[in-house]
Amino acid sequence: MRYRARVEYDGTDFAGFQVQPGRRTVQGELEAALARLDPSGSSRVEAAGRTDAGVHATGQVIAFTYRGRASAVELGRALDALLPMDVSIGRPIRVPDGFNPRFAARYREYRYTVWNGPRSPLRERQAFGVRDPLDVAAMARAGSVLEGRHDFSAFGATGRSPVRTVHAVRVTRRGRIVTIDVTADSFLRGMVRRIVAVLLEVGLGEMNATGVAAALVAGRPALDGASAPAQGLCLRRVVLGRPPLVDEVQGEYGEP
Amino acid sequence: MRYRARVEYDGTDFAGFQVQPGRRTVQGELEAALARLDPSGSSRVEAAGRTDAGVHATGQVIAFTYRGRASAVELGRALDALLPMDVSIGRPIRVPDGFNPRFAARYREYRYTVWNGPRSPLRERQAFGVRDPLDVAAMARAGSVLEGRHDFSAFGATGRSPVRTVHAVRVTRRGRIVTIDVTADSFLRGMVRRIVAVLLEVGLGEMNATGVAAALVAGRPALDGASAPAQGLCLRRVVLGRPPLVDEVQGEYGEP
Repeated sequence: MRYRARVEYDGTDFAGFQVQPGRRTVQGELEAALARLDPSGSSRVEAAGRTDAGVHATGQVIAFTYRGRASAVELGRALDALLPMDVSIGRPIRVPDGFNPRFAARYREYRYTVWNGPRSPLRERQAFGVRDPLDVAAMARAGSVLEGRHDFSAFGATGRSPVRTVHAVRVTRRGRIVTIDVTADSFLRGMVRRIVAVLLEVGLGEMNATGVAAALVAGRPALDGASAPAQGLCLRRVVLGRPPLVDEVQGEYGEP
Repeated sequence: MRYRARVEYDGTDFAGFQVQPGRRTVQGELEAALARLDPSGSSRVEAAGRTDAGVHATGQVIAFTYRGRASAVELGRALDALLPMDVSIGRPIRVPDGFNPRFAARYREYRYTVWNGPRSPLRERQAFGVRDPLDVAAMARAGSVLEGRHDFSAFGATGRSPVRTVHAVRVTRRGRIVTIDVTADSFLRGMVRRIVAVLLEVGLGEMNATGVAAALVAGRPALDGASAPAQGLCLRRVVLGRPPLVDEVQGEYGEP
């Protein structure tokens, strides 16, 4: 039977989500736990987002096939107990055979956290420290330039098509914590951290919204491909499901 | 010249604040950094609170003597640059010779953080995870029993006098995060974590405010000396200065 489940991890001590020979990965830990529960089955784990080394997740979604006898609740508890301290798994939910979260994901929400103040040992494991004051209003203006359907070659490595739809870029401050939330249907490799690197330049007064718009249009790597450090990034949410059809949208919102 | 400074640390990889032979300590790291800046001077560092192994601090206060030529701002930056990732120091402030933060501290504020939900790898480095729901109102009622001047033998190792004045015990919930803030003039060894262990029993319905009051009066180690884990505890603030004299209080508040 096929299941999906929410997974959280502290990315600090991982070489990323995806299995790599001889490296500690989140996928490797999940597959090892699953193989112990279901030695006869396939322990292959698929994920909605292949996060890079050092990137965290609170809302990663994985899928796997399990042929044992445990109920979903028992399976979740058993897997969680077998996982190391820095990975946890929620209650598995039945999905159709062949379900793959990578293709089922409608959009993904990433949050980048900046600690905007003097060095703070208790915060910098999950945030990037920037000492000089950031102009959050300017960052928000520049971020909104990126919203919509664009060729994002300036902000990420391109495999096939560099066109992505960014739903929202929100920049907010709460005291010394500045958060940059980016939601998109999907992302190019390294895209969020490259966007953040550019928005930090804007926050420090080295660039403005017009410059960001020009970089987007130019399509060459912005800031020579500079990227904000991994520890500030977290995959917060994956929303599943196909886009609503026009009729459904009308049915939902169009009736009096 | 004598200085005080605020110090923050992630206690995870330290055997506590105080120097111990062959162990990594916060005091040891601070004294090593100071010795590099002032090789001819004494590098002895005093602290307001000798936190245990694994306990964090955002508002520890230290004092030290420095005979070099750097200004306070330069000294702070140089020390901060020499310290490891998990300790930071703020700007030093001149204090009279002989100033010792342990005796100058008027009161101390500790916060204990509980993650009240399923296992959360990104939170449990700085919080203690409790899966079963906690009754925060009952914990707050039981905590208030401890406020005031009491013999706290039930909640800590006693060196000399076990009498301490607890100003406030506040228990609050924000979503799944439950915080227990304890303010006192000073604390017995292990006192906050023992109070928290008892309040968690109350939160789980195993004990009530009457039981806490009885334990306080009995003076024998409550819960056989059980203690909440170190990673949830953080020294947040040390307030310095002697208590105000009656005349000063009248001068400040008593005038029309």
